[in-house]
Amino acid sequence: FDCTYFQIGSGKVDQTYTLELENNISIGAGLVIHKLKCLSQGGPVWEAILTSRGAGIAGSRHAACVVCEDSTLSVFSAGGQRLLPPVVLSSPATRLTCSDQYVMVLTSRGCVSVWNIQELKTLVKNESLLPIMQAPAGTDLSIRSTGLTEHGAPVVSLSTRKSYIFNFDVGAWLLISSADDAVYQCSDHQSCLPPDVKLQETLLPLASLQGELNRPTRVARNIFNSNPVTRRAATLSHLDSQLAAALSMHSAKDYKFWFLTLVRYLTQEGLEPRLRELCSELLGPVVQTTRQSSWKSYTMGLSKRELLREILPVMGSNLKLQRLVTEFKEQLDVILT
Amino acid sequence: FDCTYFQIGSGKVDQTYTLELENNISIGAGLVIHKLKCLSQGGPVWEAILTSRGAGIAGSRHAACVVCEDSTLSVFSAGGQRLLPPVVLSSPATRLTCSDQYVMVLTSRGCVSVWNIQELKTLVKNESLLPIMQAPAGTDLSIRSTGLTEHGAPVVSLSTRKSYIFNFDVGAWLLISSADDAVYQCSDHQSCLPPDVKLQETLLPLASLQGELNRPTRVARNIFNSNPVTRRAATLSHLDSQLAAALSMHSAKDYKFWFLTLVRYLTQEGLEPRLRELCSELLGPVVQTTRQSSWKSYTMGLSKRELLREILPVMGSNLKLQRLVTEFKEQLDVILT
Amino acid sequence: FDCTYFQIGSGKVDQTYTLELENNISIGAGLVIHKLKCLSQGGPVWEAILTSRGAGIAGSRHAACVVCEDSTLSVFSAGGQRLLPPVVLSSPATRLTCSDQYVMVLTSRGCVSVWNIQELKTLVKNESLLPIMQAPAGTDLSIRSTGLTEHGAPVVSLSTRKSYIFNFDVGAWLLISSADDAVYQCSDHQSCLPPDVKLQETLLPLASLQGELNRPTRVARNIFNSNPVTRRAATLSHLDSQLAAALSMHSAKDYKFWFLTLVRYLTQEGLEPRLRELCSELLGPVVQTTRQSSWKSYTMGLSKRELLREILPVMGSNLKLQRLVTEFKEQLDVILT
Repeated sequence: FDCTYFQIGSGKVDQTYTLELENNISIGAGLVIHKLKCLSQGGPVWEAILTSRGAGIAGSRHAACVVCEDSTLSVFSAGGQRLLPPVVLSSPATRLTCSDQYVMVLTSRGCVSVWNIQELKTLVKNESLLPIMQAPAGTDLSIRSTGLTEHGAPVVSLSTRKSYIFNFDVGAWLLISSADDAVYQCSDHQSCLPPDVKLQETLLPLASLQGELNRPTRVARNIFNSNPVTRRAATLSHLDSQLAAALSMHSAKDYKFWFLTLVRYLTQEGLEPRLRELCSELLGPVVQTTRQSSWKSYTMGLSKRELLREILPVMGSNLKLQRLVTEFKEQLDVILT
Repeated sequence: FDCTYFQIGSGKVDQTYTLELENNISIGAGLVIHKLKCLSQGGPVWEAILTSRGAGIAGSRHAACVVCEDSTLSVFSAGGQRLLPPVVLSSPATRLTCSDQYVMVLTSRGCVSVWNIQELKTLVKNESLLPIMQAPAGTDLSIRSTGLTEHGAPVVSLSTRKSYIFNFDVGAWLLISSADDAVYQCSDHQSCLPPDVKLQETLLPLASLQGELNRPTRVARNIFNSNPVTRRAATLSHLDSQLAAALSMHSAKDYKFWFLTLVRYLTQEGLEPRLRELCSELLGPVVQTTRQSSWKSYTMGLSKRELLREILPVMGSNLKLQRLVTEFKEQLDVILT
Repeated sequence: FDCTYFQIGSGKVDQTYTLELENNISIGAGLVIHKLKCLSQGGPVWEAILTSRGAGIAGSRHAACVVCEDSTLSVFSAGGQRLLPPVVLSSPATRLTCSDQYVMVLTSRGCVSVWNIQELKTLVKNESLLPIMQAPAGTDLSIRSTGLTEHGAPVVSLSTRKSYIFNFDVGAWLLISSADDAVYQCSDHQSCLPPDVKLQETLLPLASLQGELNRPTRVARNIFNSNPVTRRAATLSHLDSQLAAALSMHSAKDYKFWFLTLVRYLTQEGLEPRLRELCSELLGPVVQTTRQSSWKSYTMGLSKRELLREILPVMGSNLKLQRLVTEFKEQLDVILT
C-alpha cells in the first residue's frame, strides 16, 4: 500500500499531529477501502474511511485535507469530523496546500481554487492559470512556487521571474513582481530604502517574493545619468507599483516599507507637489463638515495620521521642504488637541 | 401548431392554472408569432406573445416560465407580467424546472443555472455538469433525475447511483450520496436508526434521494466481524458523511435523523470521548464571558440545547455513560435557570 | 514611435487633460521602455513608465487606463497614481472604454470585463459574448457598438439589430431590443406615446438604443384589424418588454416613458382589471399593519404615489374608468393626510 506522511500543526503549541494515508485496504467480499489517519506521537487520534484512493494530503491547525483519485477534496476538522461532503474538483488535483483556515487546490488542467474552511466558503472559484502562463516562444515556462497570503489569496511565481496574485475583488490575476522588466531594473530608489532593510526582508511577504531588495542599481544610474527626468519617472513608477502590489496583497508591512521608501525618494528629489498631495491624504479633513467624508483614517490597520507624524522628520532632512513640514505639523497638532 | 400543457399551482388553494403554448400563429404579411397562455378552468387568464418558438414551459405559484428556440428564457409573474427581458442562455435549454420562487434551466451543453425569481438574482450561474459526469469507461452514464432543494440548490442524480448538490457557498458540486461505495455498503448503523424510520423516509429530502434506509446490513456485519475497529471507523465515516450531506442540503430533518442515529451508535459502542465533544458543542458556553463567543445556539433552526436535552436519555441507556449524562444534565439545568 | 491621443475630462470643468502614449523609448543597455503621459494644454502633468508596449488608452475624470501588448490593463488615478498592479486579461484587449468610474475591456476572444475603479471591484468578470453572437447562417454578424450604462452595465448592439445588456444580478445577457421581431413590429401603441416624445428621444438610454420611437405602425394596424384580441396581446407584450428592458437598464426615464405609454394604452382600450392591479401596486398598503410589508414606495427613484397621482387624470379621459379613478383618488387623499 501507498503511504504518505505530512506534518500538521495543532491548536496547542506543545503537540504535533501527523496525517497519514493508507490506501487499498482489502476488507473482503471484493471491497477495498482507504484510510486517512491522524496520529500523535505515533498513536492514532482519529481515522476516516475514504471510498476513493487518496492522492495527496495537507493539514493546518484548522483542517486536515485529502484529495482523492476520483477528483474530490475531503476536509476534516482537527478533531476528525467531516466538514463537507466530498467536493468535486474540475479535474484531478496536482497540488494541495493548507494554510491556517485556507485550503488551496491546483488541478491538472491548471485551475486554482481556494476555500475558507471556517466559513465553508469559496474565495477563489476554479480560476484558470492560463492567462498568466504566457511567455515568448522558446522560453522555459513553469510554475516555480505557489502560496497563499495570510488573507487566503493565491500567489503564483513562474520560471519567468514573474509573480502573480489572484485578487478576489478585482476578479483577476495581478502582476505583482517582474524581476526582468526594465522599470524594475532601472529604478533608482536604492539609497532611499529604510535603514533597517536587511532585518526586514525575511518578514515582508512581497519582499521575500521578490527577494532582491539589495540588488545593485549601477545599471540604473549609468543608464539614466543623461536623462534625470526619465530616471525619476521610472523610479516613481516602480515605487508606485510596489505600493500597489503591497495593497493588493493586503500586506501592511510591505506597504509601510515602500511608502517610507517613496517618501525618502520624494524628499531626496525635492518633489514638493507629490509630497503635499501625499501628506494631505494622510492628514484627512481638518475641519469636520456636516457632509459625510469618504476619507478613511486607516489603511490596512495603519493609522494615516500616525504615518504622517512619522514621515514629517524624514521630509525635514531636505531644507527646501521645511515650510511644508511646518505646515502639516501645525495642522496635525490642531487636530490632535 | 404545437401545444404543450403544464399544470401550475396558484396562490389560492382552490384555483388551478394551466400554462399552454401555441406556436407558429401566422398573422399575415409573412409574420409569425407564438403564444404563452395561462388558463383557468379552460378560460384564458392572460396571454403573452413570443417572438421565438416556445420549446418548453414550467410554472409555480410565483412564476410562469418559457424557454424558446432562440435559447432564451422568459419569466412572467403569476399575473402575466414579464419580470425580465428574455434571458440569454449559454445554449438551448433541455430541461426547465420551476419550484416555488426558483427556476432551473439545464442546457444542451450540460450547464445548470438557477434563479430566484422574487429577487431576480442568479443562485447558480451556468455551472457545468462536466465535473460530475465521470464514470469508468464502459459504464452507462446518464442523468437519472434533477431537482431543487427548498433553498434552490440543484440536485442531480446519475445512473451511477451517485447524487450531487451544487452548493453556492462552496462554489462546487458536492457528492451527497453514492449507493455503491464501500463505506456506504459497510456501515453498521442499521440497528441505531431512530424507531420511527419507516414513517420518516418519505419526508426526508436526503433519505428520499438515497431511498435505502432499510437495506440489509448483513454484508457489513460479516465483513467486519474480524475487524471491529475498522467497522466502527467505517460506520462513523458514513454517519459523518450523512450529517455533512444533510447540512449541505440545509435539511434540518435529515440532519436530526442522522444526528440521533449517530448518538445511538456512539452510545451502543460506548464511545465516550466523541459523545463528550458532541455534548459540549450542543451545550455551548456555560459561563458568559465578556469575550464574544462564536458559538451559535441554533443549527438550521434546531436548538442545540433542546437537542442535548433530547439525547441525554438516549445516552443513559448505556450504564457506562451514566456519569457523562448526569454531568451534562446538571450543566443544562444551571443554564436554564 | 507610435503615438495615440485621447481626450479625458477633468474634475474641474475648465480644464482638459490629454492622454498620450509614447512607445519604444530606447534607454541604452538594450533596455526599452514605454510611456503613458498626461498632458494639459500641451504641457506634462504626469507620466508613468510601462514595461510593455501600450496598445490602447482611455480616460475619464476618475481614471486613466492603458492596455498593453502583454494583455494587461493598468489603471491610474487622475493624479497619475497607479491604482492597481497590472491586471492580467484573459486575452489581448481589442476595445477599451472608460466612463465615469467604470472601465470596460473587450478581449480578442470576445470576453467583456467591467471594473468599478473607485471601489477597485469587478462588476462583470470576463463574460463571453458567445451566447449573444448567434444568427442564422448567412447573416452578417458583427458588433455595431458597445457602451456602458450609468451603473456600469455593458450594452452591446449587433448588426442583427439586437441589443443586449449584461445584468450583474441575473448573471446573464438580457435581450433589451430586437428591431426586427414580430412583436416589436406589430405593437399598436403608437397613438399612446406621451405627447412630448420627440423631445425626449435623445435623452432616454433605451430609446436612443432603439432609435425608432416614431416608426410607422400601419403594418400592425392592417395585420391585426381582423383580430383585436391578438393585437392587444402583442401591444401589451411589447410594452411589457419595454418596461422590463428599462428596469434592467436601471433607466428611470425610459421606465416612466413606457409606463405612461402603457397607462394610456390601457386607458384607450378600457382594460380596467390591469389598470386596477397597476394602481394598487402604486398605492401600496393603505392601512399600516404591524406585519412588515414588502411594498416599496419607490422604484428607481420614482415615487410610486407621485406616479399614481400623475396617471389618474390620464385614466380619467376614458369615462368608463371614472369610478376607478375616483376610488384611487380618495385613497390617495386619505394616505397623504
